Amino acid sequence: CLAGGLLAGPAFAQHTTVYGVIDGFAGSIRTESPGAPAVSRTVVDSGGMQTSFVGVAGAEDLGGGLKAVFQLEAFLRNDTGAAGRFDGDAFWARSAAVGFEGGFGRTTFGRNTAPYFVSLLEFNPLADSFVFGPMIAHTFRGTLAGDTGMSNSIRLQTAGRGPWRSDLLWSAGEERGTQPDRKRGRAFDGVIHYGSGPFAASLAYRSIDLSGTLAPGDGREQKAWLLGASYDLKAAKLFAQYQDIADSGAGPATEVDVRTWQLGASVPLGPGKLLASWANSKIEDADPLSSEKRDGWALGYDHLLSKRTDLYAMLYRDALKSPAGPTERVIAVGMRHRF
Amino acid sequence: CLAGGLLAGPAFAQHTTVYGVIDGFAGSIRTESPGAPAVSRTVVDSGGMQTSFVGVAGAEDLGGGLKAVFQLEAFLRNDTGAAGRFDGDAFWARSAAVGFEGGFGRTTFGRNTAPYFVSLLEFNPLADSFVFGPMIAHTFRGTLAGDTGMSNSIRLQTAGRGPWRSDLLWSAGEERGTQPDRKRGRAFDGVIHYGSGPFAASLAYRSIDLSGTLAPGDGREQKAWLLGASYDLKAAKLFAQYQDIADSGAGPATEVDVRTWQLGASVPLGPGKLLASWANSKIEDADPLSSEKRDGWALGYDHLLSKRTDLYAMLYRDALKSPAGPTERVIAVGMRHRF
Amino acid sequence: CLAGGLLAGPAFAQHTTVYGVIDGFAGSIRTESPGAPAVSRTVVDSGGMQTSFVGVAGAEDLGGGLKAVFQLEAFLRNDTGAAGRFDGDAFWARSAAVGFEGGFGRTTFGRNTAPYFVSLLEFNPLADSFVFGPMIAHTFRGTLAGDTGMSNSIRLQTAGRGPWRSDLLWSAGEERGTQPDRKRGRAFDGVIHYGSGPFAASLAYRSIDLSGTLAPGDGREQKAWLLGASYDLKAAKLFAQYQDIADSGAGPATEVDVRTWQLGASVPLGPGKLLASWANSKIEDADPLSSEKRDGWALGYDHLLSKRTDLYAMLYRDALKSPAGPTERVIAVGMRHRF
Repeated sequence: CLAGGLLAGPAFAQHTTVYGVIDGFAGSIRTESPGAPAVSRTVVDSGGMQTSFVGVAGAEDLGGGLKAVFQLEAFLRNDTGAAGRFDGDAFWARSAAVGFEGGFGRTTFGRNTAPYFVSLLEFNPLADSFVFGPMIAHTFRGTLAGDTGMSNSIRLQTAGRGPWRSDLLWSAGEERGTQPDRKRGRAFDGVIHYGSGPFAASLAYRSIDLSGTLAPGDGREQKAWLLGASYDLKAAKLFAQYQDIADSGAGPATEVDVRTWQLGASVPLGPGKLLASWANSKIEDADPLSSEKRDGWALGYDHLLSKRTDLYAMLYRDALKSPAGPTERVIAVGMRHRF
Repeated sequence: CLAGGLLAGPAFAQHTTVYGVIDGFAGSIRTESPGAPAVSRTVVDSGGMQTSFVGVAGAEDLGGGLKAVFQLEAFLRNDTGAAGRFDGDAFWARSAAVGFEGGFGRTTFGRNTAPYFVSLLEFNPLADSFVFGPMIAHTFRGTLAGDTGMSNSIRLQTAGRGPWRSDLLWSAGEERGTQPDRKRGRAFDGVIHYGSGPFAASLAYRSIDLSGTLAPGDGREQKAWLLGASYDLKAAKLFAQYQDIADSGAGPATEVDVRTWQLGASVPLGPGKLLASWANSKIEDADPLSSEKRDGWALGYDHLLSKRTDLYAMLYRDALKSPAGPTERVIAVGMRHRF
Repeated sequence: CLAGGLLAGPAFAQHTTVYGVIDGFAGSIRTESPGAPAVSRTVVDSGGMQTSFVGVAGAEDLGGGLKAVFQLEAFLRNDTGAAGRFDGDAFWARSAAVGFEGGFGRTTFGRNTAPYFVSLLEFNPLADSFVFGPMIAHTFRGTLAGDTGMSNSIRLQTAGRGPWRSDLLWSAGEERGTQPDRKRGRAFDGVIHYGSGPFAASLAYRSIDLSGTLAPGDGREQKAWLLGASYDLKAAKLFAQYQDIADSGAGPATEVDVRTWQLGASVPLGPGKLLASWANSKIEDADPLSSEKRDGWALGYDHLLSKRTDLYAMLYRDALKSPAGPTERVIAVGMRHRF
C-alpha cells in the first residue's frame, strides 16, 4: 500500500491518502460595464461547483485516542494545467498544516482553512462555488479581507458538546517585526455552530488588521459578522445568511460597510437537486459615485451520478447597481469528480 | 490503500494511482552556428528518451459500463529539480482533465494531450523524445503552433470500429471576449487511425487561429497535416511520416510552408532495439536569406532491463542548410524508469 | 494499492511510496543589529527541526539483486502553503534523481542530496535544522557555496566494507558551453565514513568552481573540508565537528577562510532527548571592518510521541562578533510529523 517514509518502511502506510476534486465546465461568460459593449466569451474552464485541488493527508494513531494529523492541499486550474487559483497563488494554498486530533477535537497549525469560510459555504446551496455562488461573490470579490485559508495560523475545532461546537483560528499575519503596521494581517476567525435535528445555525466572526494597506500607520482594520441558518424540510432544504463586513480605522473617507442577505434552497428532484440562491448587498461608503447595491442569483440543477461524481447545469447573474456597475452572467454545464 | 477523499473514507481508494516517468542522461551537446566557434557542453540532463513527469489519475465505476475518469500530469526536470519543461511552464502542463469512459470511447475536458501529438510520436521510432527525435525537432522547434497538450479543450477518443478509430479535440483557445483576435488560440486537432495486423496508419490535422500574434487583427492561422504509417516485419518495424505545416492569412510576407519527411526503423537486437530515424524538411518562406532545408537523424540502442526500465545510448544530429544555419549534435547515455 | 503507470496496471504498484515531513512551530524571533533597535516577531512558522517536504519514491526489482530506483522530493512552507524553501526555489529541490541500487551500493543521477550535507547533519545533535542548528547556520548562511542538493550531478554511495563506506558526487554545474567561466558550478562533493560500535566519524570535502561570480573570468573557487565524529556513551551521545571553508582564486581582496568548531550532545531523558550544540567560527578575510568571530548555540528538548511524531521546545542564539554584527535569538515550541 501507499507507504509513508521510504526508509521507514511500509508500517507507516495505513493512513496516508491522495485525494482531491477535479471540476470542469463549458459555457458562456458575458460581462457588461456601463458605457461599453457587452463582452461574451465561450470557455472551457475549471472549478465550477468547486475549486479543483489535489491533496495528501494522513493520520498516525498515537494511542489513548490521540492522533497526529497533517494535510497538504494544492489548488489547480484543470483548464490550462496551471497550479493555484491564480498566477502567483501559493502552491499548497488550500491548506498545509500539521497537528493533533483527539477527544478534545482537532488542532492544527500552519496554513489552515478559515472557520469563517466553512460557515459561509455551509449555509448557502451553492456552497464554495467561486463561479456560480452569489454569496461567495458578494463576500470574496473585493469585500472580505483575508483568504479562504489563513497563513501562519493556529486552528482549534472543538468536539461537539450536545448540539454545540466551535471552530477558532488565530493568525500571526505577516509577522512583521517593526512599527508601523507590525501586526498587519493578524487575524482572529471563529465560528460557534449549533445543530439539532433538521435545524442548524452558526455565528461567524473575522477581524483582521489591515494597518498600512492604504498608507503607513493608517490603522485600518476589518470586522466581519456572519449569521447563517438552514432548515431541512425534506421536500426542500432552506438556507439564510446575513453578513456585515465593516472596514474602519483609517478615517471616514475609507470606511466601508457592506451588509448582505442570502436566501437559498436546495430541492431534491430525481437523481439530483435543484439549487437556487439569491444574495443582495448594501454598500455604504464615502464615495457617492460608487454603486450602493449588489444583486446576484444562481439557479441550477446538480445531477448526482454517484456520491463522488455529479453533472451540473447552472445559470448565474450578478450586478452592481445604483448607479449601475459591471454585470456578469454565466451559463454553464459541467462535471465534478471527487477522488 | 490509497484513499480518495479524506473525509469520504477508503471506499474511494481502489482506482487512484500515482505514476510517471523519470528519465536522465549524461552526455555532450555540441552546437555550431555559421561564423562562430562550435560550443560543446558536458551535461547531466533530464528527459532524454521521454520528458519526465509525475501524475495522479483515477477512475470511478458508475455502472452500466460507464466510468468517471481524471488525470493530472506534471512535467519536471530531474536534473535541477525544477517543475515543468521550462521556466514558466504550467505545473500540470502534461494534462489536467476530467471526463468519462465507456462503450463510446473516452471524452475528457480541460488540458488534454493533443491527438496530433499522439500521431506524431506513434509513427517514428524515437516517439516523443524532445532530445533525440528528429521528427519532434522538425515539428516542435519553431514550426508547429500550439503545444503537445491543448488547454481549454474537449477531447473525444472513439472506441475502435473494426480497424478504425478517431481522436478529436477542440480548444476554446485564449477565450478572449472582444475583437480583434477574439478567437486566438482556438484550435481543432484530430486524428483518424487505421490498424490491421502488422500495418498501422493515421491521418492527423491541426488548425489553429493565430490572429494577432504578429499584429492586432492580422488574421494569421496555421494548418498542419500529418500522414504516418508503420509496418512490422518482425525483423524490423518500419516507419514513415509526411507532414505539411502552413502559416497563412497575414499576407505573403509572413506565409511559411514546411514540408517534412521522416523515415525510421526499429530493429529488435538482443535485449533491446536498434533505433534509427531520419527527417528532412523543406522550408518555403518569403525570406531569401533563411535556410530552405533542415536535415536531422538519430541512431541509437535502447536496452530493456525490464518493461519499466531501459538504458539507452544515442547519437543525434540536426542542421539547417542552404544557407547553413545552426547545427546541433548530441551524444548521450541515459536511463528511463516508468513507475 | 498505489499503482505505478495508469496504462501499465497495478503490477507496477508495490514499491511506490508517498512520504515526507511536516514540521511547524510557534515562537518568537528576535534580531538585533548594531546601532539599531532590536526587532522581535511572533511567528507561526514551518520547518523548525527539519525542513518540511513531500516526496514520491519507488524501486523496481530487476533481478540479480539489482533495483531501479527513483525519488522526487519537494520542499514546502507549511506556514503559508508556498512551495520550496524560498520564493524561486526549484519545486523538486530536495531531490529529483533516478538510478540503481545493488550489491555495489547505490548510484543516482539528476538533482542529488549532497554527501557533504549528509555528513554535516550526521555529526551535530540538531541535524539538518535550518532554524535551530548552529552548525547549519555557520555553514549555509553565506559561507558554503552550493546547496544541500546538487543539480546536474551523479552520486555514488558505496555499500559498506567493514566499518568503511563512501558517498561521492560530481556535478556538471551550470553546463555552460563557452569561456570564460565555462565550468561555473562544477563541483566534487564526497565523504569517507567510518563506523564501529559506539564510534562514528567522517571526512567530507567539497570543491566548487565559482569563476565569474564576482567578475567574468575571475577564476574563483571554494574548497571545504569537514571532519566529524560522534561517540555514544548511552547516557549521552557526544558530537564534534571541525570545518574549514576557503574561497580563493580571485586575488587576496576576495579570499575568505572560515574555520568552525561544533561541539554537541544528545542526552536521553524521559521519553525524549535533551539536545545541546555550540558552534564557533573564525572568519579571516581582507576586510578589517567585518566580523572576525561567529558564535552560536542551541539548547532544547525533543519529546518523542512515537517514532514518527515529536514535540520540541528550543532556544537558539547566534551572533557575529568583533566587531559586533547581527544577532538572532529564537524561542520556539513545535511539532514534527513524518509520514
